[in-house]
Amino acid sequence: MHTEPYALRRLAIIGCGLIGGSFGLAMRKAFPDIAVVGYGRSNSNLMAAQQCGAITHIATSLPDAVTGADVVLLSVPVGAVFDTLSAIAPHLKPEALLMDAGSTKQDMVTAAAAVFSDAAPNAFSLANVVPAHPIAGKEKAGVTNAEATLYNDRLVILTPTPQTTRNATAAAEAVWQATGARVIQMDAHRHDRVFGAVSHLPHLLAFAYMNGVDPTAIPMGGTGFQDFSRIAASDPVVWRDILQTNRTVVLDQINAFEAALADLKNSLIQGDAETLTSLITQASVRRKAWKLSSGRVPSNEDDAA
Amino acid sequence: MHTEPYALRRLAIIGCGLIGGSFGLAMRKAFPDIAVVGYGRSNSNLMAAQQCGAITHIATSLPDAVTGADVVLLSVPVGAVFDTLSAIAPHLKPEALLMDAGSTKQDMVTAAAAVFSDAAPNAFSLANVVPAHPIAGKEKAGVTNAEATLYNDRLVILTPTPQTTRNATAAAEAVWQATGARVIQMDAHRHDRVFGAVSHLPHLLAFAYMNGVDPTAIPMGGTGFQDFSRIAASDPVVWRDILQTNRTVVLDQINAFEAALADLKNSLIQGDAETLTSLITQASVRRKAWKLSSGRVPSNEDDAA
Repeated sequence: MHTEPYALRRLAIIGCGLIGGSFGLAMRKAFPDIAVVGYGRSNSNLMAAQQCGAITHIATSLPDAVTGADVVLLSVPVGAVFDTLSAIAPHLKPEALLMDAGSTKQDMVTAAAAVFSDAAPNAFSLANVVPAHPIAGKEKAGVTNAEATLYNDRLVILTPTPQTTRNATAAAEAVWQATGARVIQMDAHRHDRVFGAVSHLPHLLAFAYMNGVDPTAIPMGGTGFQDFSRIAASDPVVWRDILQTNRTVVLDQINAFEAALADLKNSLIQGDAETLTSLITQASVRRKAWKLSSGRVPSNEDDAA
Repeated sequence: MHTEPYALRRLAIIGCGLIGGSFGLAMRKAFPDIAVVGYGRSNSNLMAAQQCGAITHIATSLPDAVTGADVVLLSVPVGAVFDTLSAIAPHLKPEALLMDAGSTKQDMVTAAAAVFSDAAPNAFSLANVVPAHPIAGKEKAGVTNAEATLYNDRLVILTPTPQTTRNATAAAEAVWQATGARVIQMDAHRHDRVFGAVSHLPHLLAFAYMNGVDPTAIPMGGTGFQDFSRIAASDPVVWRDILQTNRTVVLDQINAFEAALADLKNSLIQGDAETLTSLITQASVRRKAWKLSSGRVPSNEDDAA
């Protein structure tokens, strides 16, 4: 019961950027009376977060931030997760709900297991850890771009650890639903493979494209260029951490991409119009099929893939 | 004078798809009294074009279509340009203005030179050929998706041949401005390098991405996936022709991309966080700079690049 949103009095947000700030705004809109305590490395950023209403209080240390919090959201770069978990561990209420908002999930499961596995009885434990991934970025980072509606109708993926209780998962689901999100569950390993394919690889390819393209041609880019390269403007530190954390999967995906690129390249070199047409047709058909299926949730039977 | 829009009585559109159909709609909106004669391979498509108002008359042959036309727009797949030019050549009025709307321009210049170079005195000649490239696609092809506003505030690039007169180029500029477009001129060779970089390569990469990615992951694609892969849904025949026609440039661009991808991949393999960060930062800075510069027209000094 304690982690149900209606019992929520105090929310702690560690890392008040676009994701954390939008979470604060959305939660305050849903529950106007809650206290939202923010913590981050930059004091001016925390003041901006308070200014725009994403948080109600500024904490001056990690222990301050989480002490007494009913729900804690970690929204720091993926590379900072382990250290942050270690720092807050002794200060969490046993009954608190702890979530992150990172784009990779196996690392959060592993980090949480390392930090919380030997919890004393009646101390905070893995039972209340619910790794989460809201699928709601935009290329403009920072709390000044935060919106109360960022999660509206967006997907949030929960990847509970083996020790997470059903109650904690249900509480996390209720919290995210309060922000307007649709919530699904997935195995963390499957999550990382899926988002390696549909998010991390496209980002890496967009980075490579921008680095390789003739800079003098860029100003003539039209709507195709605009959409294709939009994600290349993403935050470097956030994406360095995501790509490094999900490195094995991403390297696999690069190999599959390179094979598909080689097929297209060879058909061009050989002037093989028939193969070129069929390769483009396959891509076009698959992309059109996505449009039809988007919003559909894949079954857990896919997890073996 | 004869090719100024206000003298335009009869417009011929060869190929009534999205581009040709939208041109017809826009021109009829600007000049409600003109006759717009359409020709294409599919009779049912021509009837659809007439139904939606993109053309006023259906021609049953290429000679029929262009006979008596003041302005002729060729909007057929790039691979069909030479044969179509050859078929209409004997039937063009000497004073007609002939334009195409293809995504590659050196091939149109070359094809027009081959077909029209030995024109008799007082016959139609290269003087009135103005190759054009409206930068206004969308992934939904076909005349049923045509819009009178498709060219509104979009860029149209004219690449006059060495023999094209200033008058013909000015007339082409006036015609496209009547559709709402902004018109600039560029050397055809430079055009193909620029659009190989900002359009043809991204399409090819999006095709390769869709072909290489794990199909079971696709349904989970979010907004990043959506934008990055949007152009992969483009028409296979149109893009087979563009990629083949601009093959030399595209293969060059693929090599540059592969080198940039290898840099990112190596920094991941080696766990070199510093290099990875700087590569992502370079991409991010370039993409953000595009935003600021988009709409800016590069000077002709860039042509030497």
